[in-house]
Amino acid sequence: MSGGPLFGAVVALSGGVGGARLLRGLDAVLPPGVLTAVVNTGDDFEYWGLHIAPDLDTVMYTLAGLCHEERGWGLAEESFSALEMTRRYGGEAWFQIGDRDLATHLVRTRALAGGEPLSAVTARLCSALGVQARVLPMADGACRTLIDTAGGTLSFQDWFVAGRAETAVKGVRFAGNPAPAPGVLEALENAELVLIGPSNPYVSIDPILTRPGVRAALERKPVIAVSPIVGGRAVKGPLARMIPELSGRPPSPDAVVRHYSGLLRGIVVEHGDEAGLDLPVLGASTLMSSRADSIELATQVLSFAARLTR
Amino acid sequence: MSGGPLFGAVVALSGGVGGARLLRGLDAVLPPGVLTAVVNTGDDFEYWGLHIAPDLDTVMYTLAGLCHEERGWGLAEESFSALEMTRRYGGEAWFQIGDRDLATHLVRTRALAGGEPLSAVTARLCSALGVQARVLPMADGACRTLIDTAGGTLSFQDWFVAGRAETAVKGVRFAGNPAPAPGVLEALENAELVLIGPSNPYVSIDPILTRPGVRAALERKPVIAVSPIVGGRAVKGPLARMIPELSGRPPSPDAVVRHYSGLLRGIVVEHGDEAGLDLPVLGASTLMSSRADSIELATQVLSFAARLTR
Repeated sequence: MSGGPLFGAVVALSGGVGGARLLRGLDAVLPPGVLTAVVNTGDDFEYWGLHIAPDLDTVMYTLAGLCHEERGWGLAEESFSALEMTRRYGGEAWFQIGDRDLATHLVRTRALAGGEPLSAVTARLCSALGVQARVLPMADGACRTLIDTAGGTLSFQDWFVAGRAETAVKGVRFAGNPAPAPGVLEALENAELVLIGPSNPYVSIDPILTRPGVRAALERKPVIAVSPIVGGRAVKGPLARMIPELSGRPPSPDAVVRHYSGLLRGIVVEHGDEAGLDLPVLGASTLMSSRADSIELATQVLSFAARLTR
Repeated sequence: MSGGPLFGAVVALSGGVGGARLLRGLDAVLPPGVLTAVVNTGDDFEYWGLHIAPDLDTVMYTLAGLCHEERGWGLAEESFSALEMTRRYGGEAWFQIGDRDLATHLVRTRALAGGEPLSAVTARLCSALGVQARVLPMADGACRTLIDTAGGTLSFQDWFVAGRAETAVKGVRFAGNPAPAPGVLEALENAELVLIGPSNPYVSIDPILTRPGVRAALERKPVIAVSPIVGGRAVKGPLARMIPELSGRPPSPDAVVRHYSGLLRGIVVEHGDEAGLDLPVLGASTLMSSRADSIELATQVLSFAARLTR
């Protein structure tokens, strides 16, 4: 089945690995020009003096077919010589940057320093790598995810990578409230369907949803999410612990639905997770460990969405 | 023969490859604490948003035993993945930066941006790589070598690397007139001998000599140069063409001596180049294609200097 005829314009909101893998499937199934990805930049940060955009890079590398399949982030063919030499100099080495990946950060940082907006340099990098889908950062301006813990407030990366997300989360906040990047609101306006990828609602999707005008635009559209919680666990990352810490509920698709508070028209969950939900549900294989898995899930998600919206 | 007892403090002025190879020999022959290298930074430049210091890096890598022996610059064990990826993005790729080398530029650039002087970060990088000699940039402030050509003025790198030094030189100028880096004048003050490495007098040594106070300090010291001209040719780079272009003389050790206008107490030239010089001359094997060659030449230079100064 082709998703091509089903929707003329689809927007998918995405964090890193899970969202990127859904995008990979959607990109393969939808005709050129249909898919726009709006990607979280709340966990962007400065490192080695460079602007790192982890989710944008994961989406770009995944859509380009260059991503390391098992890790989910970074490039498949990669070396870490610069990192090793940096260690030798006693420099920061807590965040893994590969040599080819480094070129992405260097080109982006230089462009930003020269006044090119993040959305423009993202389009340019994606084009150079042959990415077909339109990839938009959620915003050109800085919006930094902050994690409140009992021990104080940490930047997302300090909490997530450097601290291995081991500290309990008392709250998530965003520093900076930039407008959506050029094209984001227009894409949502034109969308016949909005998908929320299987990404962390608190730290990957909320930064997008809280951009001025985004939530209001979504409320006028059919929105369907793919659950990032599978069998009570997060596929990746600390979400399964964050849900009870932040909402008092057990980690489940229902907690995800409630978090999005009325926004969802339907939800796609892992087979066996369908029970206890008070909105249309599709059970599917949501773990996408290969490109074929991504295509299969994307096909089912689009078909489910078509049934709900037609 | 050990050069150890001969001099208690030696300063060597150096550009890139030739100077670095003499330094390697001096460093091996002289006891710890005796040798200070004062290195040209006139051809430092910005690239990929990074501060590149080609001569400092060549000196550092050579003294650390990490330099690529045939190329003379860069690291022996090196990959070029970041450069290849940058090319793919359509970014600047005219200057070859290796992946490990990139770490040097990143650490340095970040340190400079944080307010650490070039001399301090140079000391730190050298220490991390196990360099024994004291390595000082000629200045912490910017002094940029400009090449006047018939077609206009070019930065050194634009002329030398991007333009392959193919354009005839009408003049060499320096933009910026920073004070010598901390330690330079003190090292010259304490020096019992100053050596000028086999580097390009116009673009590698003159930037050092024109730092305020340096020439005056040198005039109070025995100064001996190793000729960068061998059999009428430059060992490396465009010097053999620059000498007639800038002085009207044929390329020879004598032209080098005249360029330094009375500064030299003696000169070391390649075997067979001894004729026609009106100052003490030592004929030696000045091509240093191995560490053993460097040690042999350094030993002979120090011995020659001892005979001239005692």
